[in-house]
Amino acid sequence: MKPASEDDILALVNRFFPVDHPSLMLGRGDDCAVLRRGGPLAVSTDIFAEDTHFRRRYFTPFDTGFKALAVNISDIGASGATPAGLSIGLTLTGKEDEAWLSEFCRGMKELCDRFSLALSGGDLARSSLLNICVTAWGNLPEELPLGLRRGMAQEGDIIFLVGTVGMARLGLTLLEACSDDAACEQVKADWPEACAAHLRPVPLAEEGMALARFALQHHLEQRLGLMDVSDGLARDLPRLLAGGRTGLGADIVLSPDDLAPELLRHAAQNGISAPDFAFEGGEDYALVGTCPAPFWPELARVLSGFATPSLMLGTVRKGPLTLNGHGPQSAGFDHFSC
Amino acid sequence: MKPASEDDILALVNRFFPVDHPSLMLGRGDDCAVLRRGGPLAVSTDIFAEDTHFRRRYFTPFDTGFKALAVNISDIGASGATPAGLSIGLTLTGKEDEAWLSEFCRGMKELCDRFSLALSGGDLARSSLLNICVTAWGNLPEELPLGLRRGMAQEGDIIFLVGTVGMARLGLTLLEACSDDAACEQVKADWPEACAAHLRPVPLAEEGMALARFALQHHLEQRLGLMDVSDGLARDLPRLLAGGRTGLGADIVLSPDDLAPELLRHAAQNGISAPDFAFEGGEDYALVGTCPAPFWPELARVLSGFATPSLMLGTVRKGPLTLNGHGPQSAGFDHFSC
Repeated sequence: MKPASEDDILALVNRFFPVDHPSLMLGRGDDCAVLRRGGPLAVSTDIFAEDTHFRRRYFTPFDTGFKALAVNISDIGASGATPAGLSIGLTLTGKEDEAWLSEFCRGMKELCDRFSLALSGGDLARSSLLNICVTAWGNLPEELPLGLRRGMAQEGDIIFLVGTVGMARLGLTLLEACSDDAACEQVKADWPEACAAHLRPVPLAEEGMALARFALQHHLEQRLGLMDVSDGLARDLPRLLAGGRTGLGADIVLSPDDLAPELLRHAAQNGISAPDFAFEGGEDYALVGTCPAPFWPELARVLSGFATPSLMLGTVRKGPLTLNGHGPQSAGFDHFSC
Repeated sequence: MKPASEDDILALVNRFFPVDHPSLMLGRGDDCAVLRRGGPLAVSTDIFAEDTHFRRRYFTPFDTGFKALAVNISDIGASGATPAGLSIGLTLTGKEDEAWLSEFCRGMKELCDRFSLALSGGDLARSSLLNICVTAWGNLPEELPLGLRRGMAQEGDIIFLVGTVGMARLGLTLLEACSDDAACEQVKADWPEACAAHLRPVPLAEEGMALARFALQHHLEQRLGLMDVSDGLARDLPRLLAGGRTGLGADIVLSPDDLAPELLRHAAQNGISAPDFAFEGGEDYALVGTCPAPFWPELARVLSGFATPSLMLGTVRKGPLTLNGHGPQSAGFDHFSC
């Protein structure tokens, strides 16, 4: 059954997402929604486009809704803000029936429920490709009005990672190589963690909020740097270290012990370096940050309270960025040039 | 010359739009931007998609950038908020060279300059169709925290229009009928006002802000209704009158004197009713509102201070919505079902 009209689709959306929400002063249904004040407002926009960011072939509609929102919540979390809501520009092709739309909404709702997010509104259009553009916002603590940012690093700082790297790239590599639905299902069964990392990355917003609290407690507002790893460590680390303008680098150490078992299995089967593969990565949606070395033991203790793994990657120094003593193999992941 | 990479495109954007702006506490370049508080925040998202909302054939890149933002500012203005900024999800096809992108930015910048808007950030992606998703925000007066809304009408209220209706539909009709570039240019020369209404609608945000001030001055926060006319009066008026739930209607009076000369010329040439054509309209981006009748003379005086024309359309009453005494001819404009 195909939804007949925009009104039908909006009614379906209303079944999943309440029109009113504590984060909204005025809910959906008018020209604008009005956001409730909860602190300085961090905003981020991400596109999630068919055949650029996802394939219908192996993304279920649930995965599609989940990841379209997850990539945005990851940015909010990396600023140290508490995610609060989103609006969505949804371009449908007309192939999406009510079952597809329901699953898409269910995937998005899973993250909305987890983080108590309001859907403030959006727009619907028809086109020949599915295109999902989400703008999310979150509330920063009053005392941290600019949030956690990049470019705070100084020589001697610790570089730390929260989450795993390389697994989403592995999932993408394996799923892209599938010739048909059966092959995709087999890959999902054989490499469940890698596929999950690509299909349903869990944004580390709670960890980002904990890092914001840590920065406030220790007066590190200008010294704790943070960003999410969306284009791979090889490409994102120079951005964290102020885009190389300050001549800062590091020798990143990634040992096999730091990497996921599926990644090690894949590297062994294909005779490639697992750390190199992980360092180039892409779409990890991990958090990477810098902090003054004296604070690292206490920060590591705080991070150990989360189920998400965290580790020290290296120490900031003047000079190039290297991995395990050698230069990176490529410039990392660039969706736009794909 | 083609922009080579995402970084090249971002550098081009930075030439047009400053990274920092008084409306932003933290400008572009990090995971999130942080908005500066200027009152309760009204937000709106609109998609502007190739071959759904515009054709490359007759939209210049300037027009494309201009209108992608204009439709959103129209929503902000219709809530009575002061437009403050935007983020953009821009899906490019790879056909857009630097000249195209510069003109696109120039069109968007014209409205940014007019309303002092900040570009807070966004996302770039590649796809096979151009898709522009803008989320705009504006600041509401503290004393009007929900803004001007729909559904405020009561029996006896005046329905008023700010701006013109029917001209964008005429522009669309004429431009769609063009077989080639030369024909499009001829249409633009012969019907300049109608084409401009479709290609570069000017959002009536200053008029919306004046209506918000009027509502506050006269304690009409709960009695002055307002929305923008994006789908045509025939479709939008029932929404203004609370979606028909209250059984309210009106006999709208539109006389040829209220309509633009090009619209009258087209109607005469084609033997159609100009008021009917204008009432169905679509993409007018006019403002339509309701207010208690005793306040109309004073409101009309305020509106007469703007260059934009305004007029009384009718009086709210129980019963159906009619135009010049007869029922509307169609349900209006539905982009999604186009």
